[in-house]
Amino acid sequence: MVKRNRNIARLRAAYLFPEIARLRREFAGLHPNAKIISMGVGNTTEPILHHIVAGLTEGARRLGRAETYSGYADEGLAELRERISSVYYKNAFGIDEIFISDGSKCDIGRLQTLFGPDVNVAVQDPSYPVYVDGSVVVGAAGSDGGASQSAGYSGVSYLPCTPENNYFPDLSKIKNDSVIYFCSPNNPTGATADRHQLSALVDAALRTGSIIVYDAAYSDYIRNPALPRTIYEIPDADKCAIEVNSFSKSAGFTGVRLGWSVVPKDLYFAGGESVNADWSRLTATIFNGASNIAQYGGLAALDGEGQSEIREMTDFYLENAGLIRGALKALKITCAGGDNSPYIWAHFPGRASWDVFAELLEKHYIVTTPGSGFGPAGESFIRFSAFGSRAGIEEACERLTKG
Amino acid sequence: MVKRNRNIARLRAAYLFPEIARLRREFAGLHPNAKIISMGVGNTTEPILHHIVAGLTEGARRLGRAETYSGYADEGLAELRERISSVYYKNAFGIDEIFISDGSKCDIGRLQTLFGPDVNVAVQDPSYPVYVDGSVVVGAAGSDGGASQSAGYSGVSYLPCTPENNYFPDLSKIKNDSVIYFCSPNNPTGATADRHQLSALVDAALRTGSIIVYDAAYSDYIRNPALPRTIYEIPDADKCAIEVNSFSKSAGFTGVRLGWSVVPKDLYFAGGESVNADWSRLTATIFNGASNIAQYGGLAALDGEGQSEIREMTDFYLENAGLIRGALKALKITCAGGDNSPYIWAHFPGRASWDVFAELLEKHYIVTTPGSGFGPAGESFIRFSAFGSRAGIEEACERLTKG
Repeated sequence: MVKRNRNIARLRAAYLFPEIARLRREFAGLHPNAKIISMGVGNTTEPILHHIVAGLTEGARRLGRAETYSGYADEGLAELRERISSVYYKNAFGIDEIFISDGSKCDIGRLQTLFGPDVNVAVQDPSYPVYVDGSVVVGAAGSDGGASQSAGYSGVSYLPCTPENNYFPDLSKIKNDSVIYFCSPNNPTGATADRHQLSALVDAALRTGSIIVYDAAYSDYIRNPALPRTIYEIPDADKCAIEVNSFSKSAGFTGVRLGWSVVPKDLYFAGGESVNADWSRLTATIFNGASNIAQYGGLAALDGEGQSEIREMTDFYLENAGLIRGALKALKITCAGGDNSPYIWAHFPGRASWDVFAELLEKHYIVTTPGSGFGPAGESFIRFSAFGSRAGIEEACERLTKG
Repeated sequence: MVKRNRNIARLRAAYLFPEIARLRREFAGLHPNAKIISMGVGNTTEPILHHIVAGLTEGARRLGRAETYSGYADEGLAELRERISSVYYKNAFGIDEIFISDGSKCDIGRLQTLFGPDVNVAVQDPSYPVYVDGSVVVGAAGSDGGASQSAGYSGVSYLPCTPENNYFPDLSKIKNDSVIYFCSPNNPTGATADRHQLSALVDAALRTGSIIVYDAAYSDYIRNPALPRTIYEIPDADKCAIEVNSFSKSAGFTGVRLGWSVVPKDLYFAGGESVNADWSRLTATIFNGASNIAQYGGLAALDGEGQSEIREMTDFYLENAGLIRGALKALKITCAGGDNSPYIWAHFPGRASWDVFAELLEKHYIVTTPGSGFGPAGESFIRFSAFGSRAGIEEACERLTKG
């Protein structure tokens, strides 16, 4: 009989977020009258704003008319790729360097398939689960079990991001020839790297012959104008970095599914082979592009009116984040993030993340995400997500501060 | 520096369909006045019909209203999964056995990641490129180069489907513990397996401890009521088969991106581990679900009115197929398919597929797909696709028959 894939067997039993959903359901079953508020999964809650919805609706209608019907769009509508290059990268990239995707997580999974099993992996610790879990799946994380929730994988270099280093890691731990996953504004810590830090990251990648997979999914939350919004603001990043980004958190597209990746033509493998060419070949082989409807929504999100709506939407969630920060501050809980990011990373020294998670659920009916689910250095932290209705966030803050 | 993935290096340089698109562009550049007709890629051309478009449009509008907004849907809307189980499987499967995807090709790529490098692979020859190419990508196709267009990969058992065996392969060539990719109605041959043949396939899978990945993407084209529309019409198929399917070719969703996979709970790996559980874990890790908008279109496609529209759409393309068959018959060219399938598989004995492809393009300005692109046994065949406007297909047939 067909054997179970030994790489899949090395994954922890449950992916973090379905596990949290399961615990929530279990709790709700036992306490049917509890009014649970979710500050757990980073799932957007507010309706998409008018102009962008009109783009989506028109995208759907176009498919019903002979003169505007379209089928496979594969690497994406040229107009959308042009507009992304213009809005996010000052036209620094050609449209054949911008690939439309159905979201960052999916593209990161495909990038892991692109790189395959024989690379070193480095991640910020804590980090978004797909960097490590997806590396395990393709056999790039070493051959040990990783069964314990808090233990790391031997093939992964974990770069701790802690209050002590102000959430920017010691880059000297990066091995040669690594794929470095780096997320800024960071999920889960909410920390946002500055120009000096990102220059050091690019230097480290060039020095070690590594490729950065830069996850900029929260770049539209950056409010401090001094902070880079893309890795390509750093000179030579196009020689060592792929950037993934998404409309999920900026335009409320978590359910729409639309993102993109930038794979520069100046990026090469050790033997001089083009990374862009391999990515193009791979995505043609196992992917068929994002929904055309979503892409028309993306076009609307990138014109003047759409950009105003993105600003309005991200402002709203950042105001939520401010309320959460305020409540935690009132409780004298130290936290990071929430200023240029929708996540607040709260420290509960000496306590296990899952214990704090359970306490918040049982005492306040609030669902959060335990920091240890994001990696060993996340232990004793809790991630609060600012994605929620204003009334829900206010109620949660009141429950927290009332104790 | 990061080394190129040796599995990707083993792929032929170009994926079949982008290569054909490139040749078409090249020809169009040299002959700007040639009115080229595409019978190449299986890309739908007709607008989506009224009721289903209304479902898509409403799906978009829902995202703009607070009371109907939704974010991540992951394994899919429960109502859509229920309706698929009801319409396609007489409710034989629970919703936790039906996973909504962004299309068959994408799900096949993820299934290959699920099975990993250490399985044997068997494919119908010729077959849809992703079965072999995707196996190469995950390292399951052996360690040779496969650089030549017509040579196969050593780790793949090719099961020739030829006029001599009426396009149903010799199953005794399947090795133990294989993943068997089987497509019916077949792309590219158009052949549709009958109940007796599919029973033999299920028997072979059970005997060899293999798992069938049954690609039923064209099942809505089956008109002969005696032919099974799903592998699960065969007893015990739920113990050895995964079925993938799609709205692409039935509802015109090639650009919308919506499909599903059935992963039965009775399917196990050698060690007794649940395939369903691993699939659920994998898709949660590297996938975020199909667009909610597409899913509302899918719901519309599965009610009474939607089913009528699917019938109308597939009837239209089958009529195109009938015209193509008629033209080829008039030319005394032997062909298969086109009756329960939108593809016609035409035989040009003694000639190379790419030569016939070039002749059809140069002489008639018609783009087709060379059979050898689908595998070694496709040599000397040409695939004609019935996806096209009526006027285009009629014009193409006239050009062919006028010589």
